[in-house]
Amino acid sequence: MSERKEFRDLAPPEEAHEAIASLDLDPDPETVPLADARGRVLAERLDADLDVPGFDRASMDGYAVRARDTFGADEADPASLDLVGTVHAGERPDVTVGEGEAAEISTGAVMPDGADAVVMVERTEEADGEVLVRTGLAPGDHVMLAGADVAAGERALGPGTRLTSREIGLLSALGVDEVPVRGRPTVGIISTGDELVRPGSPVDSAAGQIYDVNSYTIAAAVEEAGGDPTLYPHAGDDYDEMERILLEAAEECDLVLSSGSTSASAVDVIYRVVEDGGELLLHGVAVKPGKPMLVGRLDDSAYVGLPGYPVSALTIFRTFVAPAIRDAAGLPEPATATVTAEMATEERYGEGRTRLMPTGLVEDGAGRTLAYPVDKGSGATTSLVEADGVVEVPAETAYLAEGETVEVRLFSPDVRPPTAFGVGEDDPALSRLLDRLDRPRYLAVGSRQGVRRLRDGVPDFAVVTGDAATDELDATELGSYRREWGLVVPGGNPDDVTGLADLVDRDLRFVNRGTDSGLRTALSNAVADLAAQRGATRHDLVDAIDGFELAAKAHESPARTVAAGDADAGLGLRATAAKLGLGFVSLGDQRVRVLANDERTAKPGVQQLAAALDESLVGVLDGLAGVEE
Amino acid sequence: MSERKEFRDLAPPEEAHEAIASLDLDPDPETVPLADARGRVLAERLDADLDVPGFDRASMDGYAVRARDTFGADEADPASLDLVGTVHAGERPDVTVGEGEAAEISTGAVMPDGADAVVMVERTEEADGEVLVRTGLAPGDHVMLAGADVAAGERALGPGTRLTSREIGLLSALGVDEVPVRGRPTVGIISTGDELVRPGSPVDSAAGQIYDVNSYTIAAAVEEAGGDPTLYPHAGDDYDEMERILLEAAEECDLVLSSGSTSASAVDVIYRVVEDGGELLLHGVAVKPGKPMLVGRLDDSAYVGLPGYPVSALTIFRTFVAPAIRDAAGLPEPATATVTAEMATEERYGEGRTRLMPTGLVEDGAGRTLAYPVDKGSGATTSLVEADGVVEVPAETAYLAEGETVEVRLFSPDVRPPTAFGVGEDDPALSRLLDRLDRPRYLAVGSRQGVRRLRDGVPDFAVVTGDAATDELDATELGSYRREWGLVVPGGNPDDVTGLADLVDRDLRFVNRGTDSGLRTALSNAVADLAAQRGATRHDLVDAIDGFELAAKAHESPARTVAAGDADAGLGLRATAAKLGLGFVSLGDQRVRVLANDERTAKPGVQQLAAALDESLVGVLDGLAGVEE
Repeated sequence: MSERKEFRDLAPPEEAHEAIASLDLDPDPETVPLADARGRVLAERLDADLDVPGFDRASMDGYAVRARDTFGADEADPASLDLVGTVHAGERPDVTVGEGEAAEISTGAVMPDGADAVVMVERTEEADGEVLVRTGLAPGDHVMLAGADVAAGERALGPGTRLTSREIGLLSALGVDEVPVRGRPTVGIISTGDELVRPGSPVDSAAGQIYDVNSYTIAAAVEEAGGDPTLYPHAGDDYDEMERILLEAAEECDLVLSSGSTSASAVDVIYRVVEDGGELLLHGVAVKPGKPMLVGRLDDSAYVGLPGYPVSALTIFRTFVAPAIRDAAGLPEPATATVTAEMATEERYGEGRTRLMPTGLVEDGAGRTLAYPVDKGSGATTSLVEADGVVEVPAETAYLAEGETVEVRLFSPDVRPPTAFGVGEDDPALSRLLDRLDRPRYLAVGSRQGVRRLRDGVPDFAVVTGDAATDELDATELGSYRREWGLVVPGGNPDDVTGLADLVDRDLRFVNRGTDSGLRTALSNAVADLAAQRGATRHDLVDAIDGFELAAKAHESPARTVAAGDADAGLGLRATAAKLGLGFVSLGDQRVRVLANDERTAKPGVQQLAAALDESLVGVLDGLAGVEE
Repeated sequence: MSERKEFRDLAPPEEAHEAIASLDLDPDPETVPLADARGRVLAERLDADLDVPGFDRASMDGYAVRARDTFGADEADPASLDLVGTVHAGERPDVTVGEGEAAEISTGAVMPDGADAVVMVERTEEADGEVLVRTGLAPGDHVMLAGADVAAGERALGPGTRLTSREIGLLSALGVDEVPVRGRPTVGIISTGDELVRPGSPVDSAAGQIYDVNSYTIAAAVEEAGGDPTLYPHAGDDYDEMERILLEAAEECDLVLSSGSTSASAVDVIYRVVEDGGELLLHGVAVKPGKPMLVGRLDDSAYVGLPGYPVSALTIFRTFVAPAIRDAAGLPEPATATVTAEMATEERYGEGRTRLMPTGLVEDGAGRTLAYPVDKGSGATTSLVEADGVVEVPAETAYLAEGETVEVRLFSPDVRPPTAFGVGEDDPALSRLLDRLDRPRYLAVGSRQGVRRLRDGVPDFAVVTGDAATDELDATELGSYRREWGLVVPGGNPDDVTGLADLVDRDLRFVNRGTDSGLRTALSNAVADLAAQRGATRHDLVDAIDGFELAAKAHESPARTVAAGDADAGLGLRATAAKLGLGFVSLGDQRVRVLANDERTAKPGVQQLAAALDESLVGVLDGLAGVEE
């Protein structure tokens, strides 16, 4: 085994925060055009450099007059003034208003010399070069004096002001078209690992290649924190290449993040490059996940090494790095960045490390927000969308009770709890149904797990096949539909498979689904029936089926194995066979039931689901009919 | 008077919502690179097109083995296996693991044929081509099966999903580099009015020119709502020009907004262009402000005409137009778009129109959010930053009680209540002090208004001069400092002004401050003293000062009038004279006191102010000393 860096002396999380806070990420201020200033942070105070308005301004359409000429005027006894001219907005007045005179004026126009008030047109009558004014005016009526809005020298906006539409408006009024703003910290992202491929290029799975998840995830998270990310080319595990790319990024960026590889050797190489070319302040933090975090300096840049697994990387980024980027950008934490929730289930912890627990959110029927741990293993990228954020559980906490209040730090301030959260059978008709809902979450864990989780009270609904045992559930059936299942075979059915007996009696390679799947249950029942017909045991038949124990994960997986030529038959749906252009041997149909947690039936998302089920049953059946052709 | 379109039959607000909802703003879907997909909305469901991982993957650094070879192994009795090779991540395995064999394997590497489990390196010992395995393994231990994360054919993300860092992560894992997203509705913004000038160009105030505020404000608000704004050239009040620009915008955009002019004639021209070239669905809505709103179609585009005053325009935009843009973009209303608050004061309404009341927010000492009406007249652009949002008061509501709960629709989802809200004297040392606070709001309304408003209980603090009557205030003095005041005169003091007597006795043009200003109070006291010395009345002296009643708005305004050559002396501060390079004749110094509402002293923002006052008194005095040189 090659020598590896061990992370034995793990620093407490506070030290990691301090180490990152000690780094200088501050970008230089810059100047941006007004049109690009939204969302930026003002670098310095701006005082008004001119009066707004810059002149005494009519604030009504009407007539500019000398107020004292109208004293005592009313409907019965109007003042009669000579009309001496007109002033439009955007014009230099070419009239002067003398005693007993008036000038027509538009809203926004410059008050002509001599006039000190505007009478609105509705209180006047014009005829034969005269204006009858039917109301008395005071000096200043309907006139906005120069500087009345904001006067030259007045404080307009303070340093650190975040520029939204309204500040943009004030800057416009002041004629500011170049806005001094704080820079956005530039963040170089280097993904490491020989196995990583950028999305868009083909992956060679047999050679262990996978798509690079961290680079894009972290780049998006950098933007969410107010930074400006740059992706650098992949670095393999080679020292020279890694050094070259890290130093290039350090030269160009305020902060360098490395991320991507889960292999200890890649982490070792980075460790050595940073130790040689900079300063390592901290290696290893006593949090789970995130143990192998690095903090240091490289050239004049700050450096943080993130863990390799995507959920770990995003969690460590949000916890330790995002606050430093926001600070450097002058941005506050978004108001929506954390959510208070109650634990939906109890949770126990064995270890003496701070735990950053990936957490999903769901609203219960009473509008409370519940939190539940999402533990698919940190290697799962789907955890990214199945969890909404992270709960920091202190090292000394061994137990969180059901109902206990926790603070969930969202993965992104734009994250919202799903409107409806379902679990259960993996099914294409259901998938179409979910398309009609706003922000649903659905975990295809199979019928058996679906029933179990619905009983635990976390999800809003479960989708299970007709033979699932649901007697003791406190659940309401929102609707159900049928689906045809059987054996998916190559197009044209070259082996002339006619039914289950062929799997038992002939030398055919089969791919099954897992025991949680309702399709697997249906198949097992069919095997039992066949065994009974033959007077054999179920076990005998199962043993005779090559691949019965070969359980594929998703509803299309067996069919795709058949399509790839790696099996002769797979368990699946007629709809799937049709979609993939494969043959199909029907073995039966089964009911798919949508069951709602009794306490959640009033939730808007569940009601939306019920309505969609009602409306779409025809559509779903149409869809099924369509694929049968 | 030219003929004008009257808005006599005002539509209720619901009709305006319906009219806008009836328009088609929907943009075509588009495809964007993954790196640009953050914040966009998925146009269609994405199912996984491949298995993740694409191969059975080691999830630990260690040795790939056949699990059954380790059955029964433990610390005392390790299993000894022959080391047959190594598999790194990103490599095609070139070994097969047979009975009694093991291969070294890195996290993320492809499991070699024959192996079905990984033993972590920490539970092994390697020597002489052999590996001792000190634990028993089950098949599948530390192996992530192909498709275990997400399997080909599984539903990955639903249509309408807003893409944040975490969804970007899942898309990366699936190798998706081109993402089908909903288009952003394109919004053409046409500002109208001959008097408008784009920021960056000089304005000719004498000719009534002002900067165009609405175009940039509305463009920023369009972006906040998820639209893509384009500014079109200004259109004057000429029919042909207006028609040409409106039709060009309609050709190119999903929605056309006109905005800018407050003059009735410009609105008339637009009205006629839309009636001639499209269809006017609605003109005039029974809301205040916003009466002259237009809704219609122009060519194939939607059209909305906004009122001319900036606060009115932004209010109408946020109320009626932003929801339609969000709908077309597929975005929900941001979670932070509205705030629940209690009325800080009572408010009465006379009219039978729905009122969209510009509202400021402030937090009281108990953490409650208070709302207060901001009524500077809709022509004021400073209302944009002095108000935080709008309360919709139904037409039938005549009265809102103090403490009554209202919903404040924020001008922008990024708006937050100020951390500290102050009112009172306009003062440059204070302005520097405010620079040290996070998000303060300060209204320079003068000492007299400052005392009155602090008594009303809305602001957190008031800044008043020493002679302001503060006896009956429930207030705590956070600190005070002194400022030197007097007459600002041209540089070099060409008229040899030596004191107040010169203003009385000589033919000098003077500019004063308003009666709310503490400087004005100091001057009035000095005039009274001089009158007493001379045995004259204060009135006699005031009458003798040319310009005593000429009140300028801000602390720099009189000095700037002097600098412009329009006056011989102005009331002001030594600091101001120094800043503008003018002469100064000292008439005294006065204390400036910072008083906090007794119930708000524990507010973090007020504490921050108190600390800044403490820390900065030396700095402030240094600053004053600096300008005295």
